[in-house]
Amino acid sequence: MQKSPFIKLKYNLMQKGKFITIDGVEGAGKSTQIDFICQYLTDKGINVVLTREPGGTEVGEKIRTLLLSNSTGKMHADTELMLMFAARNEHIQNKIIPTLNQGDWILSDRFTDASYAYQGGGRGLDIARIAQLEQWVLRSFAPDMTLLLDIPVDIGMRRVESRGEKDRIEQESLDFFNRVRNSYIARSEQYPERIKLIDASQNVENISNEIQKILKTL
Amino acid sequence: MQKSPFIKLKYNLMQKGKFITIDGVEGAGKSTQIDFICQYLTDKGINVVLTREPGGTEVGEKIRTLLLSNSTGKMHADTELMLMFAARNEHIQNKIIPTLNQGDWILSDRFTDASYAYQGGGRGLDIARIAQLEQWVLRSFAPDMTLLLDIPVDIGMRRVESRGEKDRIEQESLDFFNRVRNSYIARSEQYPERIKLIDASQNVENISNEIQKILKTL
Repeated sequence: MQKSPFIKLKYNLMQKGKFITIDGVEGAGKSTQIDFICQYLTDKGINVVLTREPGGTEVGEKIRTLLLSNSTGKMHADTELMLMFAARNEHIQNKIIPTLNQGDWILSDRFTDASYAYQGGGRGLDIARIAQLEQWVLRSFAPDMTLLLDIPVDIGMRRVESRGEKDRIEQESLDFFNRVRNSYIARSEQYPERIKLIDASQNVENISNEIQKILKTL
Repeated sequence: MQKSPFIKLKYNLMQKGKFITIDGVEGAGKSTQIDFICQYLTDKGINVVLTREPGGTEVGEKIRTLLLSNSTGKMHADTELMLMFAARNEHIQNKIIPTLNQGDWILSDRFTDASYAYQGGGRGLDIARIAQLEQWVLRSFAPDMTLLLDIPVDIGMRRVESRGEKDRIEQESLDFFNRVRNSYIARSEQYPERIKLIDASQNVENISNEIQKILKTL
């Protein structure tokens, strides 16, 4: 019997690069700030790999399609959560850890905090059960820094609507997204060292300036 | 925060029907005996629903495609295990429990024992970690009876080869399938009340007779 892969994960992580995640409700302006962060780090001579969740690997992107496609139809909330963590396991093992170990930085559009916000806050799943799967997949692994773009849900949703068709999760109610937002805020209060809450209702330049100040601390 | 869905699952299970699973290595003759069991139970006036794992639901069959398609390519063993349990959660919540609660019987071609055999024995994952996911998804739920068709791996594989193209998992080595077989046997020794080991190298009629005797005990 080989050792638990989780133990291996822990031992193999030399983590020379930094792992940054960006999260927040729909329409908070993540894409614009991701462009800014990549440009900023590249200008500093840092090799940064951009990735996303759910997805980021070949198998993970297939799981993403299953999770977000409107043709998938309804699924049980626990199934949704397990699929998110299945994609995340593939992402960590086959992309995030190898990238960090070769000394590059990695920036992920969403990560585990989104499972707490969407499946915990949004779908109402028990936080303790989410923590069990987090422990199973991540053990002690965590981002070095999480940028949480916070915006009132109605403003964010107006932006999403202007983009065109909504995916399976984006079609949820305003109440759902308000619970998601509140869960994100609660997590930033629980992990203030790692999760930096940024007011994303400011203009784009102010948000970028705030992010730049935070990145300088890394 | 709503209660853990697992607690709900436990409370909602009235289980008027019986839940039977059939398992074993590739080419053990499950399909032939499944036909026999369905006919036998139907003749007794029992309404039996046939299902399979991974799969059995709309979302589960999509996960099955991802797991078994040769175009999926390599995935981390923990990801494979989580996908199996994600499909299983959907199966239990949206098909198995509702079927049992309406008083029908359900016969599943593979179930959780296959995860212990294939991902535990075959891939070498830590049994304690598989048990954690089993506990997360199933809690105290289990089949009423499991029919384990046991056959030497080389005989089984010859049958699979005569069928044509092998799926992603069927392409594993003989060593892999020998570990799978040994894990199945070990589980039948660990749970002798539930898992009935049947020598599937006998002729078809003898196997059916043995199954019939076991079903009469239910």
